[in-house]
Amino acid sequence: MSKPLVGIIMGSDSDLPVMSEAVKMCEEFGIEFEVSIVSAHRTPDRLVEYSKSAVERGLKVIIAGAGGAAHLPGMVAALTPLPVIGVPVRGSNLEGMDSLLSIVQMPGGVPVATVAINGAKNAGILASQIIGSNNSEIREKISIYKEQMNNEVMSKVEKLDSLKYKEYLAQMPKKK
Amino acid sequence: MSKPLVGIIMGSDSDLPVMSEAVKMCEEFGIEFEVSIVSAHRTPDRLVEYSKSAVERGLKVIIAGAGGAAHLPGMVAALTPLPVIGVPVRGSNLEGMDSLLSIVQMPGGVPVATVAINGAKNAGILASQIIGSNNSEIREKISIYKEQMNNEVMSKVEKLDSLKYKEYLAQMPKKK
Amino acid sequence: MSKPLVGIIMGSDSDLPVMSEAVKMCEEFGIEFEVSIVSAHRTPDRLVEYSKSAVERGLKVIIAGAGGAAHLPGMVAALTPLPVIGVPVRGSNLEGMDSLLSIVQMPGGVPVATVAINGAKNAGILASQIIGSNNSEIREKISIYKEQMNNEVMSKVEKLDSLKYKEYLAQMPKKK
Amino acid sequence: MSKPLVGIIMGSDSDLPVMSEAVKMCEEFGIEFEVSIVSAHRTPDRLVEYSKSAVERGLKVIIAGAGGAAHLPGMVAALTPLPVIGVPVRGSNLEGMDSLLSIVQMPGGVPVATVAINGAKNAGILASQIIGSNNSEIREKISIYKEQMNNEVMSKVEKLDSLKYKEYLAQMPKKK
Amino acid sequence: MSKPLVGIIMGSDSDLPVMSEAVKMCEEFGIEFEVSIVSAHRTPDRLVEYSKSAVERGLKVIIAGAGGAAHLPGMVAALTPLPVIGVPVRGSNLEGMDSLLSIVQMPGGVPVATVAINGAKNAGILASQIIGSNNSEIREKISIYKEQMNNEVMSKVEKLDSLKYKEYLAQMPKKK
Amino acid sequence: MSKPLVGIIMGSDSDLPVMSEAVKMCEEFGIEFEVSIVSAHRTPDRLVEYSKSAVERGLKVIIAGAGGAAHLPGMVAALTPLPVIGVPVRGSNLEGMDSLLSIVQMPGGVPVATVAINGAKNAGILASQIIGSNNSEIREKISIYKEQMNNEVMSKVEKLDSLKYKEYLAQMPKKK
Amino acid sequence: MSKPLVGIIMGSDSDLPVMSEAVKMCEEFGIEFEVSIVSAHRTPDRLVEYSKSAVERGLKVIIAGAGGAAHLPGMVAALTPLPVIGVPVRGSNLEGMDSLLSIVQMPGGVPVATVAINGAKNAGILASQIIGSNNSEIREKISIYKEQMNNEVMSKVEKLDSLKYKEYLAQMPKKK
Amino acid sequence: MSKPLVGIIMGSDSDLPVMSEAVKMCEEFGIEFEVSIVSAHRTPDRLVEYSKSAVERGLKVIIAGAGGAAHLPGMVAALTPLPVIGVPVRGSNLEGMDSLLSIVQMPGGVPVATVAINGAKNAGILASQIIGSNNSEIREKISIYKEQMNNEVMSKVEKLDSLKYKEYLAQMPKKK
Repeated sequence: MSKPLVGIIMGSDSDLPVMSEAVKMCEEFGIEFEVSIVSAHRTPDRLVEYSKSAVERGLKVIIAGAGGAAHLPGMVAALTPLPVIGVPVRGSNLEGMDSLLSIVQMPGGVPVATVAINGAKNAGILASQIIGSNNSEIREKISIYKEQMNNEVMSKVEKLDSLKYKEYLAQMPKKK
Repeated sequence: MSKPLVGIIMGSDSDLPVMSEAVKMCEEFGIEFEVSIVSAHRTPDRLVEYSKSAVERGLKVIIAGAGGAAHLPGMVAALTPLPVIGVPVRGSNLEGMDSLLSIVQMPGGVPVATVAINGAKNAGILASQIIGSNNSEIREKISIYKEQMNNEVMSKVEKLDSLKYKEYLAQMPKKK
Repeated sequence: MSKPLVGIIMGSDSDLPVMSEAVKMCEEFGIEFEVSIVSAHRTPDRLVEYSKSAVERGLKVIIAGAGGAAHLPGMVAALTPLPVIGVPVRGSNLEGMDSLLSIVQMPGGVPVATVAINGAKNAGILASQIIGSNNSEIREKISIYKEQMNNEVMSKVEKLDSLKYKEYLAQMPKKK
Repeated sequence: MSKPLVGIIMGSDSDLPVMSEAVKMCEEFGIEFEVSIVSAHRTPDRLVEYSKSAVERGLKVIIAGAGGAAHLPGMVAALTPLPVIGVPVRGSNLEGMDSLLSIVQMPGGVPVATVAINGAKNAGILASQIIGSNNSEIREKISIYKEQMNNEVMSKVEKLDSLKYKEYLAQMPKKK
Repeated sequence: MSKPLVGIIMGSDSDLPVMSEAVKMCEEFGIEFEVSIVSAHRTPDRLVEYSKSAVERGLKVIIAGAGGAAHLPGMVAALTPLPVIGVPVRGSNLEGMDSLLSIVQMPGGVPVATVAINGAKNAGILASQIIGSNNSEIREKISIYKEQMNNEVMSKVEKLDSLKYKEYLAQMPKKK
Repeated sequence: MSKPLVGIIMGSDSDLPVMSEAVKMCEEFGIEFEVSIVSAHRTPDRLVEYSKSAVERGLKVIIAGAGGAAHLPGMVAALTPLPVIGVPVRGSNLEGMDSLLSIVQMPGGVPVATVAINGAKNAGILASQIIGSNNSEIREKISIYKEQMNNEVMSKVEKLDSLKYKEYLAQMPKKK
Repeated sequence: MSKPLVGIIMGSDSDLPVMSEAVKMCEEFGIEFEVSIVSAHRTPDRLVEYSKSAVERGLKVIIAGAGGAAHLPGMVAALTPLPVIGVPVRGSNLEGMDSLLSIVQMPGGVPVATVAINGAKNAGILASQIIGSNNSEIREKISIYKEQMNNEVMSKVEKLDSLKYKEYLAQMPKKK
Repeated sequence: MSKPLVGIIMGSDSDLPVMSEAVKMCEEFGIEFEVSIVSAHRTPDRLVEYSKSAVERGLKVIIAGAGGAAHLPGMVAALTPLPVIGVPVRGSNLEGMDSLLSIVQMPGGVPVATVAINGAKNAGILASQIIGSNNSEIREKISIYKEQMNNEVMSKVEKLDSLKYKEYLAQMPKKK
């Protein structure tokens, strides 16, 4: 295994079920990654060390997920010149609006590339696009991924067309 | 001048007009303070140093004001055992809701004592109450301050009573 | 048992499951406390009496939790010179936003130290920090508590490192 | 002048420009009123005294206006069996949403009849309707008031009909 | 049974579980009432007829509950000189915020006395207070009701005092 | 002048500056219209009469604009089988969110075709599209209008291309 | 089966349970329709093709449902002169507010006729009203539908009248 | 001038004052860019063409700014494998919340790297960081930029230290 290009970190291991979607996308695109826990509030020294050593350890992008008053992505962004992607993780109140605003509303000078609430999958894709912006092989994989999404929808279009909506509905799995 | 007990810091000097209200309350109650700028995002090393040295420098409370994705109060709280008071400073969008949620919604283990949006005056009073919780002279001053507020309202009650509302209104300064 | 230093009150006994987290933190830091119910709206006389007698009964800090149009923390703050910590308790609608705004948006002169929605645990820690701001033994306990939080995260970091994310995920307890 | 039936109170004299609209409606319907300042947070004793004596002083309804963490209407309602009308006064942040939620979201047992943000005019009408619910003369005046509103709109309908919209627009006073 | 004084209406029979709390309070205070369904959007003629005939049928107050774009309370208020109490019923989205704003933000001239989201119980009490503002017997019952609420809380205070919080918690029924 | 096809109504003449944008679009597409004031709350009888007579008077679409607790569009929709377009007019508080929710969140059975806050221009276009859905001449005009919009943007594209951004900026009129 | 007049599309087949309510209303009014999936983000070419061919394929109205950052309705509206109805589908966060604002807040020139969150039923009725604005048979059906809604409410009114509220409540099916 | 690496586009030339901040940062870091107008709603064909040709024209990142129902960034992201940065431009209502949610809440598969409301400056920095993630010269410039920000704050720290807060405040330029 070669050196990781993408660091995927989260404020707490309780964020792992959400953040694992980012990991899966890195796997999908064959990009080396590392996964760890870095809590801005409970391990501030680790936050500083992790962020400051990121460039020399070879990382190209950092994905940081956190909930509530989510300071992790912005603090990492303060401590590294690398692009940082922020994932607002929904907590038990306010539907994730607190996480979103804490991550996206960064002051001028220190951007965080914010994705949707619980949007870790897109964070993984975005990290891959960033790697791919200078790597035509990765970019090609992303184009293929987009094509596959298109094809999946198109096959549903056909299925809906032939089954008609009532039968299609009847065959859908029940939502919990 | 003796050693400061209250550290009053803000993320940017543009917060000073708001934060100076906290300073004035410390002056009101005769509590030594220091005022400075500590940007979580632009001076992260200073953030760490300021917060970690706070206890040994003799501070008893820290007041931190910041706007937007306001990480300063929470990060200071992560780095010191002292009580930290957070002032959400209103930015140019979202009416200060982003600052408020970024400061108040801290995870379990790391509290920030949050006051109202732009509520620096109350941050100064709260810091004094905290000092005063173990200092009966300060607490007495706070009781007197509360009495003065009561008296000011009571004299307006009398004035309104004698002038009647139309005349009272006519004598009020026009709002800009 | 010596005299309580922290008064922990709530608007209704239905807030007790949330507010008991504040109690536990006082126990954690070995700080004497009292727990009671004081409803601003249903027992207004008790509200006045409780708040006005707080100083002479030896309290140093009051923690008050309430939901909806949450007036308890602010009214206690109006009636005592002691620092008051407010816990917005989430009701059945609006995700706790009504409680939060009713508590945090206090007018100039009467602060309430507000913590996160349902953040009673942090209220307990904050009360301890306030006691500790003049008591190096308590402050030391808080430093140790922070260190323990750091260590807990660090041991999860190691576990995640050795198990890799899939296995770690597999071992996590299912959320309800 | 006979005894006032409606008490119109506000948390601060800065609310008087808004609250004077309530006064005007009482004048419009010929209902005796009193106007005063009662601050829940700065004059809590006055709050208790004012509210508890309201019935014996002959008041039938109380209108209370306040902004921010607006506790005045709810606390008055806790202290009197009379119907209390709450006017959320818009403060400098959050567009009055904090005032609205602090007033309207009262717990079961203690209602506040809430009107629109800055809706003091409607508070005055509602107080008159409450008096009028047992006084056919007042109720008649309210019916006439409604008819007048209808007629004013109808005369604008005719004017717009005859002028056509461009000319009507041209004759409208410019908004500031 | 004598003529009803309070009309309790709702936009749909699906609001009945919420609105029945208003009915119970009228029963509690011994006030005659009627309960019916009036949909502003599906039975607009009935809306007009019900509202216009309210005075002559002897009603003194109308309680109207509705959800979503809740027009019932405001339209009733447009069509009767009686005081109208609005209950925002929470729908399946937006936590009742849509209902609340649709009811409370009435234009000048046509007030609706708005209570909390799903606050039908308080609507019933408020209607009784309105009846009671001119009926000392009812007002007395309301005072007694308030005393009972006070007593209930006080007995919980004592129970909590004697059981201590852990045992009290243990005896509480589990929330679903 | 032939019979109007589009009725453009508003709750108050103060809405006319906003609503006149709808009128202009009807003029643009050569569609006959009428403009009037219909207040749901102050002229409820006119509301009923206007809405019920709309079909027989030959109207094909109704555009209704209103602010705050905006009931006009929904009540018109309750009283006519014609399609009704609602324009949420921004009031002085809450940024138009109250108007938007009061109009868009209609219950099942009674739709209102809602456009953006203050989006009267789009209401005029939408009304024209509705007329045009069965009138190829109008639809053609809409296609041409869209082409013109495209061309206007394209000529700005060229201007920006040749001037470069600094010069383009310098030539832009200053915003108030 | 004749050519469809209404195109009902959605961004994902997971929207079908919601959007099928629109289909049912077209069936109710006997209007030919087609149902399909068109993802603005995953099948952008299909989006363009579907929208541009809509007029020549004989469609008169398009209903488009989507969730989150819901771009489908607005993009279809950009690409066809036909009236487009947007249905904000509620996603797993933010209660559908993101979908609503993404659909309703269209810029001047390109309207989307927006209905309530998850309001697909009303989208179907609105489409029928649009067809019916030039088809008296359809309009008649809509009038009858409104009458039926009225009658259903009226029969509940009677039932509630005869059963009284307690018995009516007892007979209601339990909500999950 | 060599081929542009960053495409900076906006929905309307009225967004140029905001978006020019992104341009300035590209200039700061010496990164070639192009600036243009692409309206998703008024020039949908140009949207498709611009996005699809981006890779072959040599772009590495696209910055897209738009307001209201802001579909431009998401639609560009649907049509290119390149990373897309979205800038929510504040419109005249809702404080930019509509733009933010329309841009950030993208569905799984199609990320948009969202920055703060009106945060075009950060979009320019983020684009440079993305270029810099594979270009150590650019990354070095970003590190220097961060150092400069740090130094600017530090010199203000010193100035505040020597002037004391009152004098510092007195020397600050007045806010409009």
